[in-house]
Amino acid sequence: MRKKRLFITIEGGDGSGKTTQSLLLKEYFEQKGHSVLLTREPGGTVVAEAIRRILLDPKLRPVPLSELFLYEAARAQHVEEFILPALKSGKVVICDRFIDATVAYQGYGRKLSLPFIQRLNLVASHGLIPILTIYLDIVPHKGLSKSRRLNKECYGRNGDRIEGEIIQFHDNVRSGYLGQAEKYPERIKIVKTQRTSKKTQMLIRKLTDVIL
Amino acid sequence: MRKKRLFITIEGGDGSGKTTQSLLLKEYFEQKGHSVLLTREPGGTVVAEAIRRILLDPKLRPVPLSELFLYEAARAQHVEEFILPALKSGKVVICDRFIDATVAYQGYGRKLSLPFIQRLNLVASHGLIPILTIYLDIVPHKGLSKSRRLNKECYGRNGDRIEGEIIQFHDNVRSGYLGQAEKYPERIKIVKTQRTSKKTQMLIRKLTDVIL
Repeated sequence: MRKKRLFITIEGGDGSGKTTQSLLLKEYFEQKGHSVLLTREPGGTVVAEAIRRILLDPKLRPVPLSELFLYEAARAQHVEEFILPALKSGKVVICDRFIDATVAYQGYGRKLSLPFIQRLNLVASHGLIPILTIYLDIVPHKGLSKSRRLNKECYGRNGDRIEGEIIQFHDNVRSGYLGQAEKYPERIKIVKTQRTSKKTQMLIRKLTDVIL
Repeated sequence: MRKKRLFITIEGGDGSGKTTQSLLLKEYFEQKGHSVLLTREPGGTVVAEAIRRILLDPKLRPVPLSELFLYEAARAQHVEEFILPALKSGKVVICDRFIDATVAYQGYGRKLSLPFIQRLNLVASHGLIPILTIYLDIVPHKGLSKSRRLNKECYGRNGDRIEGEIIQFHDNVRSGYLGQAEKYPERIKIVKTQRTSKKTQMLIRKLTDVIL
């Protein structure tokens, strides 16, 4: 029997707490005796991190189509060089953003063709589909103000290029995520962010218990 | 009547003399009173030049699929931000490498799916097809030794990542170019590189006289 590939993705708008929740989930799996690889998109490899710098540099202005190809380039590298080998070695892989982010941001946010994005997603990911995707749902204006405050207070910097988009863009992104969750209810689970990280994490852990 | 868009591409393997020939062709058009934009792929814009640095860095190792997406990302930016506006303003645009290079290098060289590459080319270029493509044909081992000598003597450096590929790769690339020329004989013209740049340029100028 082929072993189940434990590939889990965490999705959500800016300020939804993806980073914190991913870290807490990693701890949980480790407590259960799993070996865990926590990674993020775009990134995870030297090439993909170089691409990430282009994508998030507020001084550069990639056009939407160029942005899409850059995300897919980073993904192709990440999946081939990093995620697939980790899964093959039996690790649990938790990835902060994956294919659904491209549908939400480039499709619903930037209005690029959805079938074209889905085709690129399929090729770039080598057909790898997460066994579970957690979508951390937060109303965009709340998430954004949280994310901006955090950036300012902790790093003394303004947000990146994507965070600087107008609120309408982020509302469209959220519609994209909710639409994907409706389309793939078995895979994508919506988790409303709670008052504390701990409470949100409890909901996530319940969802992962089913697949482990 | 819609004005003819004078978009000309120069293709060829490494060391085929693309740069020299493009410059000489630019001069020729200017002598004829045209306003000319000479550009290259990947490059031509800040974003695309940043992508170019990733692609040509010998220390980075993008996987073939990632490489393909990076070229298309650079192309999308270049066409939208640079080439289309120049053509609209009535300029002649000469571009050192374009869609055929992706078919030759990523398709025939790296063995990625040709229909997939053609689809990406079409989308990334917004359907822009050159009115004339000059393929500078040189036997790969001659071109490469020329290119390596030039790099060493003039810049004191070793070749980039693509030039460092084994000779079989460059033979496949050449087959790709010749195959494309056979497929699109009206658009792609093969020019065998001559003993001197001047002689090669004469052949190129004769071909462009037909379209001007």
